[in-house]
Amino acid sequence: MEKKKRNVIVGQSGGPTAAINSSLAGVFRTAIDRGYKTVYGMLHGVQGLLEGRYIDLSEHIQSGLDAELLKRTPSAYLGTCRYKLPTINENKEVYEKIFKILDDLQVDCFIYIGGNDSMDTIKKLSDYAIISGSDIRFVGCPKTIDNDLALTDHTPGYGSAAKYIGTSVKEIIRDGWSLETKHGQILIIEIMGRNAGWLTGASVLAKGEDCDGPDAIYLPELPFDIPTFVAKAKELLKKKASVVIAVSEGIHTADGKYICEMDEYSDYVDAFGHKQLTGTARYLCNVLSKEIGCKTRAIELSTLQRSASHCASRIDILEAYEVGGAAMKAADEGDSGKMVVIKRLSDDPYQAGTEVKDVHKIANDERLVPREWITPDGTYVTNEFITYVRPLIQGDVAPIMVDGIPRHLYRKGYQDLL
Amino acid sequence: MEKKKRNVIVGQSGGPTAAINSSLAGVFRTAIDRGYKTVYGMLHGVQGLLEGRYIDLSEHIQSGLDAELLKRTPSAYLGTCRYKLPTINENKEVYEKIFKILDDLQVDCFIYIGGNDSMDTIKKLSDYAIISGSDIRFVGCPKTIDNDLALTDHTPGYGSAAKYIGTSVKEIIRDGWSLETKHGQILIIEIMGRNAGWLTGASVLAKGEDCDGPDAIYLPELPFDIPTFVAKAKELLKKKASVVIAVSEGIHTADGKYICEMDEYSDYVDAFGHKQLTGTARYLCNVLSKEIGCKTRAIELSTLQRSASHCASRIDILEAYEVGGAAMKAADEGDSGKMVVIKRLSDDPYQAGTEVKDVHKIANDERLVPREWITPDGTYVTNEFITYVRPLIQGDVAPIMVDGIPRHLYRKGYQDLL
Repeated sequence: MEKKKRNVIVGQSGGPTAAINSSLAGVFRTAIDRGYKTVYGMLHGVQGLLEGRYIDLSEHIQSGLDAELLKRTPSAYLGTCRYKLPTINENKEVYEKIFKILDDLQVDCFIYIGGNDSMDTIKKLSDYAIISGSDIRFVGCPKTIDNDLALTDHTPGYGSAAKYIGTSVKEIIRDGWSLETKHGQILIIEIMGRNAGWLTGASVLAKGEDCDGPDAIYLPELPFDIPTFVAKAKELLKKKASVVIAVSEGIHTADGKYICEMDEYSDYVDAFGHKQLTGTARYLCNVLSKEIGCKTRAIELSTLQRSASHCASRIDILEAYEVGGAAMKAADEGDSGKMVVIKRLSDDPYQAGTEVKDVHKIANDERLVPREWITPDGTYVTNEFITYVRPLIQGDVAPIMVDGIPRHLYRKGYQDLL
Repeated sequence: MEKKKRNVIVGQSGGPTAAINSSLAGVFRTAIDRGYKTVYGMLHGVQGLLEGRYIDLSEHIQSGLDAELLKRTPSAYLGTCRYKLPTINENKEVYEKIFKILDDLQVDCFIYIGGNDSMDTIKKLSDYAIISGSDIRFVGCPKTIDNDLALTDHTPGYGSAAKYIGTSVKEIIRDGWSLETKHGQILIIEIMGRNAGWLTGASVLAKGEDCDGPDAIYLPELPFDIPTFVAKAKELLKKKASVVIAVSEGIHTADGKYICEMDEYSDYVDAFGHKQLTGTARYLCNVLSKEIGCKTRAIELSTLQRSASHCASRIDILEAYEVGGAAMKAADEGDSGKMVVIKRLSDDPYQAGTEVKDVHKIANDERLVPREWITPDGTYVTNEFITYVRPLIQGDVAPIMVDGIPRHLYRKGYQDLL
């Protein structure tokens, strides 16, 4: 006789995206469809779970409309954390505590939606389950705008961020030239990505029959040399009234120094020591202003690029939903220590499906933009890059507008200090 | 016998918006419908006209689809300028030159789409027409995201910027709390507006059943006091994990010093002496970081807020089109030295129409947010403000998507150095 199904718990971890809640909706739907009783949502990931903070998702997703709102709600509905589990040797008590909570909640399946650090959590918890003889299954659901997870063709969240970046960069380019005729100006757009240039490369999507696209693109995969950059900017300024350059926040010199750290008055470390890689564009604008004497403007896409649900990619939101469902299905069917990946079957027409991979081969690895997808001189991405990213931004998800503004799914007490 | 209709010339001036091209489409359509032969577009406004730079718009708007694309194209299709005409006494030759060009082009009507400076141009040119006995009519079409023109209920361009600001601030708020539980952080969002707080006030649109909205809003209409601001921020941080504060780039102390000028390492003046009022949020984040010791992040909406056509308001785009048509109609029917204004007939249901006003009563005047629409303590806007702005962001204009990115109307050579 098959064992009676009990409960599921799902959490979100790491940086928010425009698609992470669509995966949450997918997990919830598949869990209910497969006969689980209660789907718990941990608040602020494992960190919140350790403090006994969780909700019953069925009290929040009460209708099909709620599910549609959730898919269109940016950031993490449950809240996330950046908590890194200690190793079992370092602190066994943490594991015992988590498993006690899960047992008390009669949980069979634990789904964690996140990036590299989150997959490390899945790896450690599934290892502990084996050691301790628990039959709880731990499955990861990929999520990160950075698109840097190993073994998956791409990660949910990346497509929507890429669509927002392409759209916004195109509008910034248009804005830039309208006031300029003679003097010339250089706009530098700073885009997220500490080590991987997937997001910055997506600025190329602004390019098309009606727009030149950015004039140069600098990814963090290659060392950044300021004199070469200044020379390139000078050259571009000879040809155009308004030059637009996209740079990754993570660009650094050959010896590993971040450009944003070069500003001696940099405020990138705050009182708590939180490092923000911001100020790269501003620093480079100051350099160009001094070296070339041209008008400059620094534009940071900031957190907008990861939370702009109003400009989400339909492919991305649908895939995020599917991947959530596939993670739940895998856990239900007995998989543990696994992550769902997206496998691309074809570029044109775009076709993709999901597979399940061993999380030990994924956690703490980082997938960068291949060198051959960056031009030899390191100032642009190639057509291969465009072929890769283009399918991921197709289609729109119309926001549900209420009084002129997109409606999100509300969660009471979301801002409470705890 | 009625005089045979000849040609029209239209220009765009000042800061770009998401709606200025819809007005251009309106002028073009009404001019053609009313039997004008050629509709010229001056490139980069009067400045370009003085250099003999103009195009025949019918070569660019060749179909209904082109007109729809133009309405969805942000920034200024023709390019703009910040050229201020000298007075007739200062430099009569400039006027003679302009009128010579207009006469050579057989122009009857001159439509200028712009803000305060542009209305000054209409005033001076229409005055010169009277003095010199020219029968060319000069009519202004309002445009500015700043919403600071006198005598009109609001200006085209404002509604779309307000919708973008409300939408983006809401997404930033969601993003902000997802990672925060205990320590607390303060996000400061910097919004355009040197003297008028209409745009910054629009951040209140993020507020609704599903979102608290910004926790404080500071407009440039009132003097800004840093110690009071720090105290307010401290108080907010006691209640919430993630505090979001919207500030205008133009906030300044009681003695008129801009906050962004206080940063001694400020880079807000570039090599050409172009002043950019940026760095306000960054400066205040540094202050809070030092005074409170909390995590902070500065977010500038930058030029995105004025050029985000992908998030345009339908009311705004339609009104911009109508106002363009009304300006052309007024000029055709003999008006000169006038500007079209929008007159609100009712808030709910929203109804508005156009009227024609004497440009002498508009130019160089500035309409600010009324004191009674700001709360007594100066840290928020009132319900009257919301009632005013809410109708202006209603409805969407679906971008025409090509390969996942909004398509704009292309103009060859737009970036040429001339």
